[in-house]
Amino acid sequence: MLRFQLIRVPLSASKFSTTLPLTSISRKIPRTTRLISSMATYSTLSQPSKLLFRQLFEKESSTYTYLLADVLHPSKPAVLIDPVDKTVDRDLSLIQELGLKLVYAINTHVHADHVTGTGLIKSKVPDVKSIISRASGATADLYVEHGDKVSFGDLFLEVRATPGHTVGCVTYVTGDASDHLQPRMAFTGDALLIRGCGRTDFQGGSSEKLYKSVHSQIFTLPKDTLLYPAHDYRGFTVSTVGEELQYNSRLTKDEETFKNIMENLNLPYPKMIDMAVPANMVCGIQSKPT
Amino acid sequence: MLRFQLIRVPLSASKFSTTLPLTSISRKIPRTTRLISSMATYSTLSQPSKLLFRQLFEKESSTYTYLLADVLHPSKPAVLIDPVDKTVDRDLSLIQELGLKLVYAINTHVHADHVTGTGLIKSKVPDVKSIISRASGATADLYVEHGDKVSFGDLFLEVRATPGHTVGCVTYVTGDASDHLQPRMAFTGDALLIRGCGRTDFQGGSSEKLYKSVHSQIFTLPKDTLLYPAHDYRGFTVSTVGEELQYNSRLTKDEETFKNIMENLNLPYPKMIDMAVPANMVCGIQSKPT
Repeated sequence: MLRFQLIRVPLSASKFSTTLPLTSISRKIPRTTRLISSMATYSTLSQPSKLLFRQLFEKESSTYTYLLADVLHPSKPAVLIDPVDKTVDRDLSLIQELGLKLVYAINTHVHADHVTGTGLIKSKVPDVKSIISRASGATADLYVEHGDKVSFGDLFLEVRATPGHTVGCVTYVTGDASDHLQPRMAFTGDALLIRGCGRTDFQGGSSEKLYKSVHSQIFTLPKDTLLYPAHDYRGFTVSTVGEELQYNSRLTKDEETFKNIMENLNLPYPKMIDMAVPANMVCGIQSKPT
Repeated sequence: MLRFQLIRVPLSASKFSTTLPLTSISRKIPRTTRLISSMATYSTLSQPSKLLFRQLFEKESSTYTYLLADVLHPSKPAVLIDPVDKTVDRDLSLIQELGLKLVYAINTHVHADHVTGTGLIKSKVPDVKSIISRASGATADLYVEHGDKVSFGDLFLEVRATPGHTVGCVTYVTGDASDHLQPRMAFTGDALLIRGCGRTDFQGGSSEKLYKSVHSQIFTLPKDTLLYPAHDYRGFTVSTVGEELQYNSRLTKDEETFKNIMENLNLPYPKMIDMAVPANMVCGIQSKPT
């Protein structure tokens, strides 16, 4: 929104302005002000936001867990995406401190590198329902399919099937209703990682399917869509569709080259897969969800 | 902003609405829509934002580096707060991909647990200027003091002296001009950590000073101010002034109790201090900045 305004600012003595005209360090000179005209600036004053958002990290498996809540709704309903068993107490403590009501513990897919926290969360907060895709074949309270919406308060996550890393991978995308936050946010699991993607050599993985999933379901989102993966191993926390369209080292290639890359990664057998996958088929603990 | 509007949404069949009225999973039924009245909702449509912001993590020392840029300015000037030597190539590569012009490499203080990346950045991008507080006693291209503003494009960081972890610690706070982003963001270094704070037993540290610094310079910011520390060891990425005022395990105590806590931490001697501090006194490399 372009607008014209007069703003009152402290008078600045720009010590370095001759050498660095676009940047400076200015000393505050109290009690001396001047009126300047700030024309054609973009207003970045935000409106009160419905969405509370927290990115949480589990260091051992480099997994990101995401907390989202509608804080303008009276009950402050919240969801956790990809919780890890080892950090359940941290997550539940934060949720309690923030005065939120956790309603869904959601997985993007059946993980092979860590144990999901959903079962443990359900044992500690029995009202919470676990969610996973029907195509995953895993047990959960609720199953989602492509096109479904997971609602919490006045917000929702749209479900997009993005198989390829596993047969049941889905990406959750924040709603596009006119009163939702812009830009949109996509929680991509292991389908799309920052500048990379998940491997495709086990759990029904398919490089062909992954290529189609990312190009049809993620790369078609608006370019400013924020991408939040399930992992990052280099310390990145977020990317955008625009960035990955330009710089993803694998998915910017044509399909044949991509398939060739994925078939020749020669990765070691995942350390935790034999323990994690059977556990994650049943919410991370060896008992059926209630 | 309250507003009345009519929005067109897909008709939803809410499968779980009887048991979970505030949350639901709905199936998308294509080609069938209805008009509903959405009254009194908060608009969360954001305006085009000047600020590009990235939080970056260095796993070994659990250090956060922050990238900020004014992307609506023609030259896209950027600053890095607390870069780490080991992740300089990652950071510079990201800056290049995003089309930014790095102008300042800034430290909140002389770190004792990792080597700053500022010297290495300057050797790779000679136009970049290093910044640290004058009170730190360290060498840099530019020195800041309490009340200074570090400008990049139309954005700036306000400098607040927050000594106590070290004698020269400062907190950088995003500008409060009317065209700046709200809520404000404070980069607190080790003065305030999420639910904790930095130790006060070396480098001119003082629990008394740290208590006064946090209470007078950080806790007086608006409650929704986002707090970004230099480290987190439990996987948290951000907090707010409101949260720390209520839940910080040390700084919510009275001053005497706080001093007593800090004097009885019995922490081991920092592993890297004898190497890191001398290096960080000269931008992380044993040669004077040019």
